[in-house]
Amino acid sequence: MYKRLLAVLGICALIAGSVLTMTGGNTTADAGNKFNSPNNGKVKNVIVMIGDGMGPAYTTAYRYMNDDPSTPKMERTAFDNYFVGMASTNPEDAEENVTDSAAAATSMAAGVKTYNGAISVDNDRKPVETVLEAAKEKGMATGLVATSQINHATPAAFGAHDVSRHNYNDIADDYFDDMINGAHKVDVMLGGGTSYFDREGRNLIKEFKNDGYNYVTSTEDIMENDSEKMLGLFAPVGMPKAIDRPKSDPSLEQMTKAALQQLDKEKNGFFLMVEGSQIDWAGHANDAVGAMSEMNDFANAFEAAVEFAKKDKHTQVVLTADHSTGGFSIGRDGNYNFNPEPIKAADRTPEFMAQEIIDGADAEEVLDEYVDFEFTDEEMESIEKAADTENFDKLYSAISEVFNKRAGVGFTTGGHTGIDVPVYAYGPKSEVFSGLIDNTDIANEVFNFLK
Amino acid sequence: MYKRLLAVLGICALIAGSVLTMTGGNTTADAGNKFNSPNNGKVKNVIVMIGDGMGPAYTTAYRYMNDDPSTPKMERTAFDNYFVGMASTNPEDAEENVTDSAAAATSMAAGVKTYNGAISVDNDRKPVETVLEAAKEKGMATGLVATSQINHATPAAFGAHDVSRHNYNDIADDYFDDMINGAHKVDVMLGGGTSYFDREGRNLIKEFKNDGYNYVTSTEDIMENDSEKMLGLFAPVGMPKAIDRPKSDPSLEQMTKAALQQLDKEKNGFFLMVEGSQIDWAGHANDAVGAMSEMNDFANAFEAAVEFAKKDKHTQVVLTADHSTGGFSIGRDGNYNFNPEPIKAADRTPEFMAQEIIDGADAEEVLDEYVDFEFTDEEMESIEKAADTENFDKLYSAISEVFNKRAGVGFTTGGHTGIDVPVYAYGPKSEVFSGLIDNTDIANEVFNFLK
Repeated sequence: MYKRLLAVLGICALIAGSVLTMTGGNTTADAGNKFNSPNNGKVKNVIVMIGDGMGPAYTTAYRYMNDDPSTPKMERTAFDNYFVGMASTNPEDAEENVTDSAAAATSMAAGVKTYNGAISVDNDRKPVETVLEAAKEKGMATGLVATSQINHATPAAFGAHDVSRHNYNDIADDYFDDMINGAHKVDVMLGGGTSYFDREGRNLIKEFKNDGYNYVTSTEDIMENDSEKMLGLFAPVGMPKAIDRPKSDPSLEQMTKAALQQLDKEKNGFFLMVEGSQIDWAGHANDAVGAMSEMNDFANAFEAAVEFAKKDKHTQVVLTADHSTGGFSIGRDGNYNFNPEPIKAADRTPEFMAQEIIDGADAEEVLDEYVDFEFTDEEMESIEKAADTENFDKLYSAISEVFNKRAGVGFTTGGHTGIDVPVYAYGPKSEVFSGLIDNTDIANEVFNFLK
Repeated sequence: MYKRLLAVLGICALIAGSVLTMTGGNTTADAGNKFNSPNNGKVKNVIVMIGDGMGPAYTTAYRYMNDDPSTPKMERTAFDNYFVGMASTNPEDAEENVTDSAAAATSMAAGVKTYNGAISVDNDRKPVETVLEAAKEKGMATGLVATSQINHATPAAFGAHDVSRHNYNDIADDYFDDMINGAHKVDVMLGGGTSYFDREGRNLIKEFKNDGYNYVTSTEDIMENDSEKMLGLFAPVGMPKAIDRPKSDPSLEQMTKAALQQLDKEKNGFFLMVEGSQIDWAGHANDAVGAMSEMNDFANAFEAAVEFAKKDKHTQVVLTADHSTGGFSIGRDGNYNFNPEPIKAADRTPEFMAQEIIDGADAEEVLDEYVDFEFTDEEMESIEKAADTENFDKLYSAISEVFNKRAGVGFTTGGHTGIDVPVYAYGPKSEVFSGLIDNTDIANEVFNFLK
């Protein structure tokens, strides 16, 4: 509690600093209004949305993707009108100063800096309370929605504690075993992960069902759900990327809506975390097609959350990223043009196509089926050469590179980068997230809402 | 005027939209205060600062550079407390949708989208009025400060009109020949460019002197200047980068202070544009040492401008970038660490060192003199191999790559990238630059101040 208090005081100082900044050093009463709560809006519900790996090059590229080239200015995306600031993301790690998803999610969930790999434990490996836990303590409903396995680093840092993000089974166990006031701490869980929940030695699905959770596995199921406790698992590990996903698997928007519908029944309010998990995975693979597919899935979910908040009037939505991935750039090799058309020409991700080819399908037939442009001889040669190695990663990379080169986008790494990430907000307290904040400020402000 | 009116109306709509956004859709009187002028502050003076090429990876990297690693959060930079938003930068160009400096500067100077290469002319090649010209029309003092030649794209777009940025002589001529109310339109010009101002066929330096300008060529000169009209040229083309600059050449901070001191004498107020010109040049060369040197020069100039504005209370400072350059990333090749130490170990830029070697100095001696770490055999080999080609660009690149690899930073291009750029503001109207804006909004808001 002492630490939390200090952190909160720090935030207050920060906000006070912003007031001075934004009003030109003026400290008149009027000026003070700017960053204090302008309408004394009460926050009943909180929705935190995290685009994993969604650095500023992704949000800008997504605008280029949706541009109408016949108008001089670019049309605004679902995110743009809600842009309020940026967040710094560095972890507190002895070896690395570029964050991983676990350390960043811990900062956003618990308000502390920690080491890469930590799931809501601090640098002394001690558990730190998360905003989801604080909400549950207060009698609020809670939810986690992701397109990765639901026990992956980002959701894990809100609902579990572990010294390592790689302890997937232990993290899934935490969701069941860690009780708050005699109840499981997460009321709604939607994502991938059957292989961890129903595994040799333990069947968490059965255990959750025994405790009254409705277990759902399809889009139809979640549409028909009328239980306030719901576990939905739609894949053994991560779900397919949006453009690869069969209709039987829900979109992130559908999962978000289904979660909101149930959580909203709790009169004490709710806390929901929604992750666009695989922008990052596509970034790691340097796959612009996959990344834009996931951006679109995430943007639609954000629109659903904002729509809910606009009706509700007491819901605070805040959306950000944990870090950027891949060193993604709009433009490459001296080229001053980003062409979205080749990316739009793909009906499936390079990942999906690579898998079909590795599974025995003919490369040319696969590309012809799923891509709406003619591959050059040179492009086909590079793909067939990669296919001959029978190495999935090499083939995925070779197909991705065709799209990247045609689109004119570059990458510098298969890992993360340290660039600040954009912050978007809608709701009665959006102003507390404005300006340059730190990722720990996300948690600290949400803790304030829950007081 | 009609176009301008439309643009202004567009901005108003944008601001109104932001009000709704930021206050959670609440439209109470209180909420309305947030993005209206909180103190009805009058803007007398305007300072527009442009970090050429300074995308968000540069401003974040600059924070990493100045971090005290013994504290968990990173210390804030000179920029951070003034962060208010980001700007989109796309040009309106038939071939390219990633901007160059000329199109972006035209947007920021005149509020119109245009083609790459345009110096304050629109897509019909017609001149468009700039904020500097509007200020001069109003009887205000005007200034341009840069570390490039003062007739380079960014300052040119504020003080000249040309169908091509490459017409350097014509642009320099514009500064003298284009009169407003019988006077030259730029009162203070400080930067590089003697080769264009004193050239075969015309000596603009003499002409400016004849018309009462104090011509200055050294740090000492600008310190002692007491003329309100001043032309200061400190290099044939661009000035040396900050860490390569001899003491006799002024820093960007010194030029900014000297300009402010004279411009402030005008009782009608002033308009000043200050450019950190060579962040971009270092970005094009994929040179992190040069880029950080220029970031520091620019940050110091910003601090001087804010200090002036804090005392003055009626000065609006707005700082942004025209685009990002190089696809610069913090982290590369799967490495999750950015180490500032190798960059700090350089007393001169790789550019400076490469020039000395090309001019005949021994590579090992040069590196030993200017760099505070031991080069590995492999590094020395790559540099000596490049030196053997006697190709300056190759050698500059080979030396830069040693620093980049040690520091852990990557690049994807020798050109620009389309990522949104950060916007910082200090002064009575800072709020008009908050949220996601377009680069044309910079000009349109400044036009509003001048009404």
